[in-house]
Amino acid sequence: MTSYLFKHVAIIGCGLIGSSIALATKKSLANARITIYDSDESVRHKARELALGEVFDSAPESCDGADCVIVCTPVGKLREAVLACVPTLAKGTVLTDVGSVKSYALSEMLPVYPEGVHLIPGHPIAGTEKSGPEAGIAHLFENAWHVLTPLENPSSEYQSAVESLSKFWSNLGARVEIMGAEQHDRILAITSHLPHLIAFNLVATAYDMANVEENDVIKFSAGGFRDFTRIASSDPTMWRDVFLSNREAMLGVLDKFSGGLEVLKDAIRDEEGDTLFETFERVRGIRRSIIEAGLDSSEVNFGRNT
Amino acid sequence: MTSYLFKHVAIIGCGLIGSSIALATKKSLANARITIYDSDESVRHKARELALGEVFDSAPESCDGADCVIVCTPVGKLREAVLACVPTLAKGTVLTDVGSVKSYALSEMLPVYPEGVHLIPGHPIAGTEKSGPEAGIAHLFENAWHVLTPLENPSSEYQSAVESLSKFWSNLGARVEIMGAEQHDRILAITSHLPHLIAFNLVATAYDMANVEENDVIKFSAGGFRDFTRIASSDPTMWRDVFLSNREAMLGVLDKFSGGLEVLKDAIRDEEGDTLFETFERVRGIRRSIIEAGLDSSEVNFGRNT
Repeated sequence: MTSYLFKHVAIIGCGLIGSSIALATKKSLANARITIYDSDESVRHKARELALGEVFDSAPESCDGADCVIVCTPVGKLREAVLACVPTLAKGTVLTDVGSVKSYALSEMLPVYPEGVHLIPGHPIAGTEKSGPEAGIAHLFENAWHVLTPLENPSSEYQSAVESLSKFWSNLGARVEIMGAEQHDRILAITSHLPHLIAFNLVATAYDMANVEENDVIKFSAGGFRDFTRIASSDPTMWRDVFLSNREAMLGVLDKFSGGLEVLKDAIRDEEGDTLFETFERVRGIRRSIIEAGLDSSEVNFGRNT
Repeated sequence: MTSYLFKHVAIIGCGLIGSSIALATKKSLANARITIYDSDESVRHKARELALGEVFDSAPESCDGADCVIVCTPVGKLREAVLACVPTLAKGTVLTDVGSVKSYALSEMLPVYPEGVHLIPGHPIAGTEKSGPEAGIAHLFENAWHVLTPLENPSSEYQSAVESLSKFWSNLGARVEIMGAEQHDRILAITSHLPHLIAFNLVATAYDMANVEENDVIKFSAGGFRDFTRIASSDPTMWRDVFLSNREAMLGVLDKFSGGLEVLKDAIRDEEGDTLFETFERVRGIRRSIIEAGLDSSEVNFGRNT
């Protein structure tokens, strides 16, 4: 299988991830043409100001002649965005996305993408709590994982497209991993989606309790809470879409989480110190595994918005 | 009221906080004598190796002649530790602690401290997930809050002792705040204790689900989860004591948190996107308040173990 370098990358949707891809591509693939479209005029304006690439006022203009189209909209807008690109999507073009829920992303794109286009869904496990084109960071993907969930298509053209897309992301600094969409969604439900939902809920709980002590809650937030407020400041639209589109996996992990919390609550109520201690001791093991796996250093991008 | 500088600070219990106080005192109060006792012989050995102060093999020897005794044991050991110091606690000595739950700390110390000693409970809102004497950091308290919860004692001697203890902590770089023990415990339940319990439970949930996908959970933990594993690696003994001793406040915030999580879970199950979106939008406000209050910079110590 031969991989090739993309000559023209079209970015559809220019928020944090789209703008970061533009900046990273400019750096790592200096000869590639970068075209951009966003359905929001003010975002297009901003993208022009920031000189992120050639900004067009329609999706087909942006995709025209591209050998790689990366749709970077929230997953809830994915189908609409792909449909908008269809008129100029040529055979052999790689079509990918960056959505956080791969089975849903696939179900949205599969029925509408043109035959002969190489659909290869993807997800960069990187991000910050910021959003918008001005939040883009050229090194966002460095040492971050990028998961590809290719279709079951053994053709050599398709395999070569997967190879080329892997190479593209490697060139942006990412570590590429290939897996099934459902496996991706189960893993991310526990490592990313549930932590975000919990952070949103913790801050909401504090907020509701805060009437009298609001300032004190903020003032003394060094003790763990402030990390949660940062996570909980992530984009509401994106996260609504993530939770709804990874519904089954989310309900599964939420049940397990709530069950565990009930056990700990009962232990506090019944003053069963041993139950608490044993649980806390046990979880130290995971932390040790992370440290032993060499995953706890600046070597790995600490994305939080994924 | 006249404040005075302590000439001899005795530290009882030499873990992360005790050793950090020793290091910070050496830096900021160069002329003060620093004496140390820990009930664990290996900790005393380590403290000697690290030259944290004059290390004694008994609490009374360490407290003899001290004008300030700081008990830095887990709250579960507080009463025992104070009792051990009693033989050499002189009238006029300031007796304080660093326990995370002030009403409980008070209830443990109040019945056993000698008359004429100035009991002034305290809590530094600073820490890391590490523990032990080798985890001490000289700048741990810089720009961190230090809460004092003094007794209702209007005597000028006591007020002058409070003043002096405030000054001591200010000299270590902390911002000192005075409030009631119950108020402290309600605030910390939501800003620190609940976040820690949630982190423990999240990692435990992942661990229990992980049999098949353990490596992947760790591998892809950049998406929010890894922050939780760090928080959840905090000292199990300390946290068991915190949860049990702040039982009432914990059960209160846990009920509110679980209630909120049920609402979000129902919204995901019933695909009510608006409920999710509105909650997430609302919590952004707290984050903005923190940024506006200037609390989100390196200016403030990001303590996590408090």
